[in-house]
Parts: sequence; C-alpha cells; structure tokens
Amino acid sequence: MAKAAEAPSGTRDLFADEVRRRKAAFDRLAQVFEHYGFDPLETPAFERLETFAGKLGDEAAALIFKILKRGVHEASGEADLALRYDHTVPFVRVIGTHGGKLPTPYKRYTIGPVWRADRPARGRFREFVQCDIDTAGASSILADAEILFAINEGLEALGIEDFQFQLNSRQALYGLLEAYEIPADHGGRVLGTLDKLDKASPDAVAAELADRGVSSAIAESLVADVLAADTDRVRARLDTTEQGKAGIAQVDDLLRMADDLPAGRARFNPRMVRGLDYYTGAIFEVEAPGYPGSIASGGRYDGLVAQLGGPDMPACGGSIGVERILAIQESGHQQHRGLDVALTVLGAQDEIMRLASQLRRRGLRTGIYLGSSGKLAKQLKWANEQHARWVVLYGPQEQSEGEVTVRDMESGEQIRIAIGEVAEQMSRRIEQP
Amino acid sequence: MAKAAEAPSGTRDLFADEVRRRKAAFDRLAQVFEHYGFDPLETPAFERLETFAGKLGDEAAALIFKILKRGVHEASGEADLALRYDHTVPFVRVIGTHGGKLPTPYKRYTIGPVWRADRPARGRFREFVQCDIDTAGASSILADAEILFAINEGLEALGIEDFQFQLNSRQALYGLLEAYEIPADHGGRVLGTLDKLDKASPDAVAAELADRGVSSAIAESLVADVLAADTDRVRARLDTTEQGKAGIAQVDDLLRMADDLPAGRARFNPRMVRGLDYYTGAIFEVEAPGYPGSIASGGRYDGLVAQLGGPDMPACGGSIGVERILAIQESGHQQHRGLDVALTVLGAQDEIMRLASQLRRRGLRTGIYLGSSGKLAKQLKWANEQHARWVVLYGPQEQSEGEVTVRDMESGEQIRIAIGEVAEQMSRRIEQP
Repeated sequence: MAKAAEAPSGTRDLFADEVRRRKAAFDRLAQVFEHYGFDPLETPAFERLETFAGKLGDEAAALIFKILKRGVHEASGEADLALRYDHTVPFVRVIGTHGGKLPTPYKRYTIGPVWRADRPARGRFREFVQCDIDTAGASSILADAEILFAINEGLEALGIEDFQFQLNSRQALYGLLEAYEIPADHGGRVLGTLDKLDKASPDAVAAELADRGVSSAIAESLVADVLAADTDRVRARLDTTEQGKAGIAQVDDLLRMADDLPAGRARFNPRMVRGLDYYTGAIFEVEAPGYPGSIASGGRYDGLVAQLGGPDMPACGGSIGVERILAIQESGHQQHRGLDVALTVLGAQDEIMRLASQLRRRGLRTGIYLGSSGKLAKQLKWANEQHARWVVLYGPQEQSEGEVTVRDMESGEQIRIAIGEVAEQMSRRIEQP
Repeated sequence: MAKAAEAPSGTRDLFADEVRRRKAAFDRLAQVFEHYGFDPLETPAFERLETFAGKLGDEAAALIFKILKRGVHEASGEADLALRYDHTVPFVRVIGTHGGKLPTPYKRYTIGPVWRADRPARGRFREFVQCDIDTAGASSILADAEILFAINEGLEALGIEDFQFQLNSRQALYGLLEAYEIPADHGGRVLGTLDKLDKASPDAVAAELADRGVSSAIAESLVADVLAADTDRVRARLDTTEQGKAGIAQVDDLLRMADDLPAGRARFNPRMVRGLDYYTGAIFEVEAPGYPGSIASGGRYDGLVAQLGGPDMPACGGSIGVERILAIQESGHQQHRGLDVALTVLGAQDEIMRLASQLRRRGLRTGIYLGSSGKLAKQLKWANEQHARWVVLYGPQEQSEGEVTVRDMESGEQIRIAIGEVAEQMSRRIEQP
C-alpha cells in the first residue's frame, strides 16, 4: 500500500520549475537542429520486441523493459513489445518502414525519453531523455561536418561556453595498426587497450598491449605515437598507409572547416577510439571542464543501417548528453515562476473572475485565491507563497469606488486603479518593470 | 523479419510537419494554462502496477500495458510496472507521494502520451496524447470556473471558433431524482438512461426508465423536464429539494461568470450526465460543429483523490480531446517547412560550410547539398524537393569574383551578392519577404 504511493524505482516526478527548464533546453536544441535543416521525428515509446532482436549487445539487451502480451495471451507470461532503449534502432526501423517516402538524404533529430532497466543510482535514471541527430544516405564529409557544427551550436545554446571536440577517424586508427603490421583480427582489442590511456599510465597500457600479442617495441612506439604532444609523429606514421592517409584527410577536412570556431574548439586526438564498434569513419567526443566524461559524441557508421535491418546506406550522427548537462547545471538555474498577479477574493467573485480573464488574455500569469478563508492576512500569505509580483485587493470600499488596490509585493507600495483599466495598466508594468 | 520493420500495431511514426504542428498546439495550450497559474507536471511513463490496482474499472484495467519483471524475475512471466493509462491516477499518486511539499491548492497541467491496448481503428491509437488540467484542494466554485475558462481559452488557442459548453451539476441530477422520489440506489441507472436522450427517442428512453422500475407517469414527466426547450420547468422542479437548489446554484454561478464569453458559449443542459461515476459537483462537456462527440469535458470529483489512495481533498478538473481535434484539423493545416536557403556545392566546400554556419546562426533554415553529384541540375532538383526558398550557387566564376549567385526559387530571378554580405542580406530578405 505504501509502495503504491511511490514513483517506480529509478524514475522521477518532474515539477514546474524543472519541467520548464528542461523544455526550454529541448526547445533551444530543436531550434538549432531546425536551422541545420534536420527534421523532427517521433517514434512510438515501444517497438515490437523482434525489432530489437540481435541489434543490441547482450549487456544492453538485458536492460530492455519488455511489455507483456495482452488479453488472453497475458497468461503466457510472454512479451511482444519493448520500450525503446535508444533512438538509433527506431531511426533505422523507420528508414526500413518508410524508406522511399523519406527525403534523400534523410536528416532527422529526436529529443525524447528512452528507458533502460539499469541499476538506479544518483544521477542515473531508468527513464531519461536522449537527444540525437543523424543523417542517412550521405557519404560526403560535409554531412559529418554538419553534425559536428550542429552539436557545437547545440552545446552553445545550452549555455556551455568552454568545450572541446576530440576528433579522430576509424580509418586513421586502422591505418595506424596497419603501419605496425598488427593483424586486423587483433585490431579491436588493441584499440580498446589504447582507449584506456586517459585513465591508465603509458607503461600499463604498453604492458597490456604486449599481453595482447604486440611486441613490446611496437607497443611502446604505438603508445608514444598517440601520446606525443604534437601530432607530427603520428601523422608521419599514418602517411605510410592508404587507410591512414584517408583517415587523417577526414580529420583535416573537419579541422579546416572548424577553423571559424573559437580557438582550440576542435583538435585531432589520435588515441580517441570511442567504445562502440559500429563507427566506420570520422568520430568525435566532446569534453568540457566541470562535466565528467564526454557531454556529446558521434561519428560515421556506414554499415549500421544495413546491419540493423535497413537498406545499405551510409550514415553519420551525433548525440548530446542532455540529461548529464542539465543535472550539472541544475544548481545554478533555480528560478521559480511566480504569479504576475494574485487576485484576493473579498466578495464580488464575478468581477474578480472577469478581471482574471482580462489579465490572463493579456498574457499575465494570474492566480485567484481559491481557499475558504475570508481573511485578508491569510489570502496575502497565499499570494506570498505563490511568489506573486502584484496583489489585487477589491474590498467593499474599492467596489463602491469602482477601483482596485494594487500592492507591489517587492516595495510594499499600494496604488489605486480604476477597475476597467487594471488589465491594461498591469500588462504595461510587466513589460516595463 | 518483415514485421520487425513495422511500427507496433496502433502506433504511428510522426514526421516533421506533424511533429511541428502537434508541438505548436501543445505549446499554445501550455501557455494558456501557465497564464491561468497552472504548473506543469511530468510523471514517469510507467507506474508500479499496484498503483493502478482497483483504481480503474475492469474494462479499463484490461487495456493496461504491463511491463515484465526484469533480470532473474523475468522468467516468472509476472509484471510489476504498467504504462500510464491516464493522467489522473499518476496525479493522485503524486499528491500522495509529495503531498506536503505541493502548493495548496495544487493546480497542475499535463500534456503527454498515455497508452491503452485498445483495438486499433481509424483515428484510434494505442499511444495518444491527453491534455489534463486539475486543481486539488479547493472547493470554491471559482476553481470550477477557472477550469472552465482555461478550457475555453485552450480551445480558442487551438483555432476552434464555434463551440458550446453544456453545463450541469451532479447535485442537480440527484435533486431531480429526489424530487421524483426515485430511490438513491436506482439513481445511477436512471441517470445512465437519461444520458441516452442524445441518441434515443424520448419514448424509448421513457420506456427504458419504466423497465428500471420508474412509474411511466414519472418517466414521461422526467423526460419532458429535461427535454423542455426552456429550462424553467426543470428549474421549478429542482427548486423543491435542497440538493436541486445547490446544483442549480452551481450552474448559475458558472453561467453568470461566463457572461463575458461570446453569446451562447455556455448553457445549462439538464440532461447532460457525463458517463464517469466519480463526478460530485458541477460537470461540463464541450461540443463543436464538425467535431464528433465532445471535444472537452470535466467537472468536480471531490471523493476521487481519497478513493485513489490520496488524502481526502476536494478536486476538479478538465480535459481537452486534443488528439481528436488535431485529427479533424489535419487536412486543413498541411504545410511543409522547407529550407530558407539551399546551398549547392560546386567545389569550395570550406567556404560553403562557413556560409552555411553564418546563415544558420542568423536563424535561417539552411541545407547543404550532401549528395555525390557534381551536376548543377541534380543539385537544383534536390533544392526543389527541399522546398527551398532561395538557392545559392558558388561556381568557379563566382569564386573568382568573391560573389555568390542567389536564385529566388519562386520568381526564378537571380542576383549576385558579395560572399561576405550573403548572410546579412538573406536574413533581411527573410524578415521582409
């Protein structure tokens, strides 16, 4: 009985200030993506269970919320639907469903909740918003650049001033392996080890590489390549293979196009790998002081649409970690949206209601005292709790004179206004406080 | 395999124009409710299954989407969570969870999806948006009036010009039964029969009343009361009981306050019952020509919060049938959001990308040709498909002269602009077309 009164584990009730703050952030992001020519797409909260089958790794699949069959099939205990785990699988499903009717290339953004049965923890929820942009059907580096620029402007729109794109390319990484003649079937694990250089010492990483069958001379050289303060050393290495050349060309194209961005906004990071296997071309991660981990990431994933059951088409995309950003910003953005005008009720209900309508139609956030107390002190206490900017009093004396008393709740000052002019005068005061 | 590529039965993928149109409608409604001092509330997509237990009738309970337990408990085939069926049960649960921390009275609005495993049909979906406003903790008729006015302004904000509130009161209905000495335990069924007068003939309804144990003289008089063109007859009847007097007083309070609304916007309809049992005071339904059924409804439900497990507090609310309204309006509101500017790519990628950034930062929806064709004709075809207003050409000749050619896609006219001035000039043209 007690539990029935709680929100489910790992979920939140979002109240006024938080809903408004989140909506404002999502709206700003949507506007940026619209300017970039991305189209909004909304898919259902759930997909057929088979849509996810084999499309996520085992670890992810275990976190899917499954929906029981309905009606007479409920007793079977079987599931046929699943809450969406991310926006990528539904995006690819949509390309499969609507393919020919979609524009080419298809550029879409989605800002909406996903659900994961993760172990709840501080700041980790089972329902959280993901913000994705993707372009399917374009192999041009301009498509990669658009994603990067849109993410850049999205982060600026969220008020983040200081951040940096780490750029790399999967081809550059494979080119590097090729330059050292590391066999392709070792490649994934070797890159996974290199990815640890942010946390582990160069020696530890070199040792792990040696464990993976890389000679210790090569392991040390490889680590030194990607850690060198300037990138000339690794560039020279990449220049020895076709893959390496292609990869560094992608990175340089992006760096050149990003030349107009604030100095240092983007840099080539030869040891940035990105965990997910499916990337095939340019990749990026965004870091910002004061934010743990990366606040945005993305890249090109040319094989994934076909692999997830869609047509064979190139694609690239990016994602902003908007929940993480909002959580960090939370403390700094506390602001109540109070009432512009609070109307006390000392008789004359009909006139009060009429006055409220007039104020509301002029866009003033207006509250009426709905309690049962006829005492002014109690009504003023309510107005205070509502963070009201002005309070309107309309007692017997005001009524007999066809006026209202308006109290400025900041200064305590009171003025009399003819009742027919209240709405106009108050809306002027709101515009020019 | 084929099915995996389809959206689940009864759900939709919402594409650009529809997402934008829906968002605009929801934003307009939210703004109205904000002006009325309602606060937004967002609850999780799912609640604990026990939160719904015994709170919905059997018919509704059968339509709940249940979520399977996770991890090792999945094999049990048991569910522990359920997608929200409406916004009322979560609203009451929130009052139970956060009670003391909420303002008094608590006025909230919610515009968000609910899920029902209804048999899919044309215009009936398993995922659809409900738009609710409710006030808990106020018994004043001003709270009822606020709901009514907010719904009125919400419908106007949706562009509905001609609609009418049917007003009644549960007390008036019970008073009417009392005046005819119809026993209280018959009351519900008698009112249910009266409610059929919109579809069935007076004789058929009188006959059904007689079946329910009402004498045929009383049945005929009762039907004549509520069908009479003017309401004096039923008012005289209501005046004979305390309940009836209280009920008609509520209706008259609301009618008087609604006096400022367009003529005929609200009327007393003594045979309007509202299907749901839980209403206890004033009730309303809104009808509009061209829209089947009612497009909004609501009323006072003082017992429900306690009945659903919350504290004992008065409450009233209303709901706008926004999906129904949007579905009817759909045909009339077709509009593509095309590109403001389409940039062709005839070499000089970096300059094009830079130009795109400048245009986008000025708020112009800007697309870059991302395809592989170097042919202008093909690129212009793409710009056309994108409903582009202007196309920018930047070929070798333009490059050598530091200019771009801008083509007006409506008139076909072409002008040359210095590349440094394109963003400013184009944004001026957009503002003053």
